[in-house]
Amino acid sequence: MKKIPRVVIIGAGFGGLQAAQSLATTEVEVILIDRHNYHTFVPLLYQVATAQLSPEQVAVPIRTLLRKAKNVRFLQAEVQQIDFVAKEIKTYNHTLIYDFLVLATGTQSQFGEIPEAKNYAFPLKNLSHAINLRHHLLCCFEQAEIETDWQKRRQLLTISIVGGGATGVELAGALKELITKVLPRDYSNINPEEITIILIQSGDRLLTELPKALGDYTVKRLRRLGIKVMLQSRVSQVREDGIELDDGTWIPTSTVIWAVGVKAAIPKSFPFISRGRQGKIVVLPNLRVADYPEVFAIGDLAKVNCQGKSLSGVAPEALQQGVYVARAIRKQLQGKKITRFNYFNKGRLAIIGCYSGVGQIGGVKLTGFLPWFFWLAVHLVYFPDWRNRFTILFTWLHNYFTGDRPVRLILSSPQCLVGEQQRCWSNKYKEVMSKN
Amino acid sequence: MKKIPRVVIIGAGFGGLQAAQSLATTEVEVILIDRHNYHTFVPLLYQVATAQLSPEQVAVPIRTLLRKAKNVRFLQAEVQQIDFVAKEIKTYNHTLIYDFLVLATGTQSQFGEIPEAKNYAFPLKNLSHAINLRHHLLCCFEQAEIETDWQKRRQLLTISIVGGGATGVELAGALKELITKVLPRDYSNINPEEITIILIQSGDRLLTELPKALGDYTVKRLRRLGIKVMLQSRVSQVREDGIELDDGTWIPTSTVIWAVGVKAAIPKSFPFISRGRQGKIVVLPNLRVADYPEVFAIGDLAKVNCQGKSLSGVAPEALQQGVYVARAIRKQLQGKKITRFNYFNKGRLAIIGCYSGVGQIGGVKLTGFLPWFFWLAVHLVYFPDWRNRFTILFTWLHNYFTGDRPVRLILSSPQCLVGEQQRCWSNKYKEVMSKN
Repeated sequence: MKKIPRVVIIGAGFGGLQAAQSLATTEVEVILIDRHNYHTFVPLLYQVATAQLSPEQVAVPIRTLLRKAKNVRFLQAEVQQIDFVAKEIKTYNHTLIYDFLVLATGTQSQFGEIPEAKNYAFPLKNLSHAINLRHHLLCCFEQAEIETDWQKRRQLLTISIVGGGATGVELAGALKELITKVLPRDYSNINPEEITIILIQSGDRLLTELPKALGDYTVKRLRRLGIKVMLQSRVSQVREDGIELDDGTWIPTSTVIWAVGVKAAIPKSFPFISRGRQGKIVVLPNLRVADYPEVFAIGDLAKVNCQGKSLSGVAPEALQQGVYVARAIRKQLQGKKITRFNYFNKGRLAIIGCYSGVGQIGGVKLTGFLPWFFWLAVHLVYFPDWRNRFTILFTWLHNYFTGDRPVRLILSSPQCLVGEQQRCWSNKYKEVMSKN
Repeated sequence: MKKIPRVVIIGAGFGGLQAAQSLATTEVEVILIDRHNYHTFVPLLYQVATAQLSPEQVAVPIRTLLRKAKNVRFLQAEVQQIDFVAKEIKTYNHTLIYDFLVLATGTQSQFGEIPEAKNYAFPLKNLSHAINLRHHLLCCFEQAEIETDWQKRRQLLTISIVGGGATGVELAGALKELITKVLPRDYSNINPEEITIILIQSGDRLLTELPKALGDYTVKRLRRLGIKVMLQSRVSQVREDGIELDDGTWIPTSTVIWAVGVKAAIPKSFPFISRGRQGKIVVLPNLRVADYPEVFAIGDLAKVNCQGKSLSGVAPEALQQGVYVARAIRKQLQGKKITRFNYFNKGRLAIIGCYSGVGQIGGVKLTGFLPWFFWLAVHLVYFPDWRNRFTILFTWLHNYFTGDRPVRLILSSPQCLVGEQQRCWSNKYKEVMSKN
């Protein structure tokens, strides 16, 4: 009997999941490994953090998505060790041998020169982060509602976002919506004018992946919404009660959202291979790791050059790489030559919120309502599960017409109780959850 | 200016919330206090635990439910101390004076003579419990999928439920549905026949609040579904790897669900007043606490006698008491006499699952499909929010027609990773969450 080759895919994000699904009809055995039992639709995380969608709406059990792929098995585990020479992967109590390996573990937050940010700032890279942030924001509102000390109120009602990329911009807009739409209805002692949203960006423009004109529009639009956009500003210190900028400015704030800085998510014990900026794996034009023709790295984890430029780590790139890597494995099995990976850029959209967005499709730059609407429509269409797609659409329509943010539940630690502690989240709890 | 009397309501369950809403048009200031910022629709918790509904579907922010009640304020806090003489309530950093007090804090799990059950058994009294149980069950399946040791497999795939009341019965049926509908599609290495569901009841019948014939039907129905119903059995020991019955039988099981035993949820520092079975507050026929005409106790917290019988602590009783207490406060303010509380029993339903239920409406006993359907319809109608009502209906229809249980996400601690630890939930994490 012919031995069926085994493909091990690590990571069930956009790239890894797509690779597994694209291999469904190929005569290989696929094992897809992830730490979580669900696939997260990362672009909508910010809507979970701002109480628009529930966590269960933006995540789908991986086993649900693999039901039709009979040759794909899922394993919930954390990979501890990878050996490219022995072609072996170790989890806590399993050892797996592979014929092909697809690395698709993505990136994780990094706090760079400000290690204490890890303790006090809220990242937004995964579903737990989004839930934590939602709880924290709502706790701050609950506390501010009954706080009489004006300094404490100001701190509770100042939300600072570090990083002016897509995540920072969409969060700023979504927070503005939450504050103007919901707070006046719910908190009689909080005046929406009391709330300050600050977006801090080290460079001189926002959304650096898009043309300058669109970044400039975004700054103008956010400022018109009342968001304080601070360009060419860097955070030098993060504390429990606020942040310091490198020009010495002290901003009292209970909420620091960390939307800047990622590094490759690599298992503890990993072969010594070429790594680029942010620790990303440098791959050949066919997404292979040099010297190991059976090892591929895709998605945000890989440093990929296309047409002379580095790819930027967005979902469509990972999806196309997932499809490509499945085809590459098929070709390699047939002894055919593998052509280089080419990214077909269909365009780029970013949502600002409050009915506006920016984008570039073909050579055409778009601003305002149209890219806002396109952004939502495209993400709905790309959502991998029809049931969630329907409930997301229903929730969006409901939120649009009622102006509500319905998922304002604090399902969290007892420390959240008003006044029991200054911060909502005890470090103990945060520690437990952050490992997630 | 006339001083507006202040009514403080502690607990935003069925009784407390209803009392607050019923006082919306009365000229009083109402402060509703709860530890959580949401109202939980407790009867549907078992559907959260079995991945049918998401937690956000069965809970509604209290502030949403109070938007129309302009004289009602919400305070998220835990009451530490109540002083009936000074008419004063203390939370961690607030002191409130009341003119009327409505106690509606309900009950909490108690583990009686088996204190170690607290560490290993899963209660199902609040939303966190339901989420924990969902995570734990799914973790057991993930582990069993790759476990080769048959003893370990048997332990992982044995689910024991202690308590044959409504919660125990509905969980048994819902687990059966989960196992027969979802597992064969998701876990190729688990045979549904391997899974044992055991329902342990100390008495000689199930559903003691209903006529014996209906309890007997329930036993027969559950047994026909393949559930092991053990009557006149008591648990004497709960360990991490199983339970012991008082006849010495050892049942290896990773999942012990604690659906038995409650006690009144009373703040730490509480006046010395008459308390009945389970620590419940003994009230006068008008739901007042003896000697304190401005203090009422309602819902599951109160020991209420109606027509010579103790009420049993179900939602309709609490709702009617909430309406009654609002009227009683109005009458008292007008100097009118307060008549005694009378519970109007519209009937009683219990769901078994797998399209069957039991119930008694008027004098008529019902079994089978009809009470199953009634149970779902009644709970949908009584759900306090139209948005959630719609999404629940959609989810039920989806689940009915696809036979799926879509919310199978493990959004939890890293200990859940297969093999890292025998149990899914580290004690540390459980400790943090159980305070919730």
